[in-house]
Amino acid sequence: MKGIAILGATGSIGCQALDVIRAFPQDFRVVGLAGWTNYTLLRQQVDEFQPELVCYQNDDEAHPGLGLARGTPISLEEMAQHPAVDLVVMAIAGSSSLLPTLRALQAGKAVALASKEAIVMAGPIIAQMVAGGATLLPVDSEPSAIWQCLRGEPKAIARLILTASGGAFRDRPVEELPFVTPKEALKHPTWTMGKKITVDSATLMNKALEVVEAHWMFGVPWEEIEVVLHPQSIVHSLVEFCDGSVKAQLGQPDMRLPLQYALFYPERVANPGLQRLDVARLGALTFKPLDIQRYPCFTLALDAAKAGGTYPAVLCAADDIAVNLFLGGRLSFTDIPALVERVLAQHILGDGESLNDILEAEAWARRRAQELALARA
Amino acid sequence: MKGIAILGATGSIGCQALDVIRAFPQDFRVVGLAGWTNYTLLRQQVDEFQPELVCYQNDDEAHPGLGLARGTPISLEEMAQHPAVDLVVMAIAGSSSLLPTLRALQAGKAVALASKEAIVMAGPIIAQMVAGGATLLPVDSEPSAIWQCLRGEPKAIARLILTASGGAFRDRPVEELPFVTPKEALKHPTWTMGKKITVDSATLMNKALEVVEAHWMFGVPWEEIEVVLHPQSIVHSLVEFCDGSVKAQLGQPDMRLPLQYALFYPERVANPGLQRLDVARLGALTFKPLDIQRYPCFTLALDAAKAGGTYPAVLCAADDIAVNLFLGGRLSFTDIPALVERVLAQHILGDGESLNDILEAEAWARRRAQELALARA
Repeated sequence: MKGIAILGATGSIGCQALDVIRAFPQDFRVVGLAGWTNYTLLRQQVDEFQPELVCYQNDDEAHPGLGLARGTPISLEEMAQHPAVDLVVMAIAGSSSLLPTLRALQAGKAVALASKEAIVMAGPIIAQMVAGGATLLPVDSEPSAIWQCLRGEPKAIARLILTASGGAFRDRPVEELPFVTPKEALKHPTWTMGKKITVDSATLMNKALEVVEAHWMFGVPWEEIEVVLHPQSIVHSLVEFCDGSVKAQLGQPDMRLPLQYALFYPERVANPGLQRLDVARLGALTFKPLDIQRYPCFTLALDAAKAGGTYPAVLCAADDIAVNLFLGGRLSFTDIPALVERVLAQHILGDGESLNDILEAEAWARRRAQELALARA
Repeated sequence: MKGIAILGATGSIGCQALDVIRAFPQDFRVVGLAGWTNYTLLRQQVDEFQPELVCYQNDDEAHPGLGLARGTPISLEEMAQHPAVDLVVMAIAGSSSLLPTLRALQAGKAVALASKEAIVMAGPIIAQMVAGGATLLPVDSEPSAIWQCLRGEPKAIARLILTASGGAFRDRPVEELPFVTPKEALKHPTWTMGKKITVDSATLMNKALEVVEAHWMFGVPWEEIEVVLHPQSIVHSLVEFCDGSVKAQLGQPDMRLPLQYALFYPERVANPGLQRLDVARLGALTFKPLDIQRYPCFTLALDAAKAGGTYPAVLCAADDIAVNLFLGGRLSFTDIPALVERVLAQHILGDGESLNDILEAEAWARRRAQELALARA
């Protein structure tokens, strides 16, 4: 039995990971659950799975973390490296995922990484750990697709081709984008996901972060990673090999499939709870080039990632704040790239070689983004 | 350097195999070339590649095989097991491929098999040899696609999904099929191939033979092999794994790609002569169920293969004769399944456990198909 800790248990990915684990009680034991604000749900999960370790990060008098103590209260970083844990599902949205991810990898735990911010912020550090033998398992559907296509032949890559649905506003006239509402932004055409990533899908920030994740995770040069629009979200990504052959991974848009693949890797196991893909009834799968003019966040993010150093941490933090302000009705949709761009422009680049540099830049960018947004309002 | 013998060198597959070999003079040496009727082309090939061994199977006074003797004249079976040969490209159309395929595998040669008739006629015999360690490399685009998708994970298969273009008459009203001409049948919508296989594509006999090939080559039960219509011939086949994940192999419809994959396996090597697939400009890839009413050869062939014994040999031989008679203007297109069905109906089933049984049934079926066609005319 693999001992599993889920960091971000009450979010969309956390709940879906628990759904997979529920189907395989012989294979997995939930030893740790960490949640942030959803006390009621975390409480239910603790009652059901009876983990030894619990982290509720938002202790207050009404909902003290100790109230959850069927398990021992523990910090995120402690849980990530606890001896009872074999595999950490890292599903904390945003930049708080970085530190526990590093701790888990350092402690020799397998990390099933849904929080791409961790690898975006500290790409070279994590890539070095993986090169040294740390086990990082992609969970996001696109890098999971690439990982599956590379199985048995991790070399000889000519190009990674990430697919993008285009998000909630792919068919909206560009001139209407300043006026779209958070409610509209949260209607993803094909996937059901958390709020942050759904807005990031609408701006294509999410796709840029996936390019960065793929760059560091698979060691592929920037110019050999391409993004194509594929509105149906059935082909999750493709790999072109050096001989011109292309492999693709397809499936229903259901995060439980890549989650299960990472949890069981290298095994594949049947799960009657997952819907099959009926290829004969797919109809048309369409592909077209990405219109990057439409998605200013995409170029902005890639430029920051390529520049490297502390820029990627600033990018993630500024986007986090900008998306929150948009969701709270305090920024327009098109203000998201504008704010991120201003924070990046004001940042004094550090080399980002130490974790400390990265965390400092991240904290600075959060403050600066808030200040700029307030000054503007 | 791998020593390569090409049996069926002057046909479509043979020429394309030589085209790949021409691009990699450091990796391959042509040690044997065998042709059937195209003396002029075989002569050119012998002049260019200077093989040690040559087989011209249609010796006559005007074109004596010895006239090709920059190489030593030799029989197909001798060439298939010659010590200088490491890998045999088996590209002889029809049932004559069986004996040299078996000889090559027995002699420990790798066989890159384009001639699916060999494995259709003697499936259990060849499957047993492969289980015992013989190296059989698929060359046809569909089994090559499956082979590529199974790389690194040959187990946990839920289903093989072969794609079919639908052939030359996929959009023709069924009531016009009795009147279509050989010239029309030879216009394949997406692939450039030999005559026999192009007609077999129009009847879908070819797709049924691929199902049989996949059954024996990958050890997958009949009910777990599906065929879907995919008119663009870009997705060459797919594998559904037991967890519901699907992998697909895509590429330009160019036989040189699977040929090169088989020749270099397990390496992948860049070949500037092969056209890349530009995924962003694919437009729509479509998939729909196969209308088996439209293609009587399909069910006929699968029923014969499932019944087993000597039926598959009879099937191949009868189809060979029927297609030749159609190409010669002596049978209508819809007479092809009718003739094959009559020959199968008249066959007294043998167990097909010995090669001799298979070859006798094959010879009987050829004669019977000719007789029935003549009696009808």
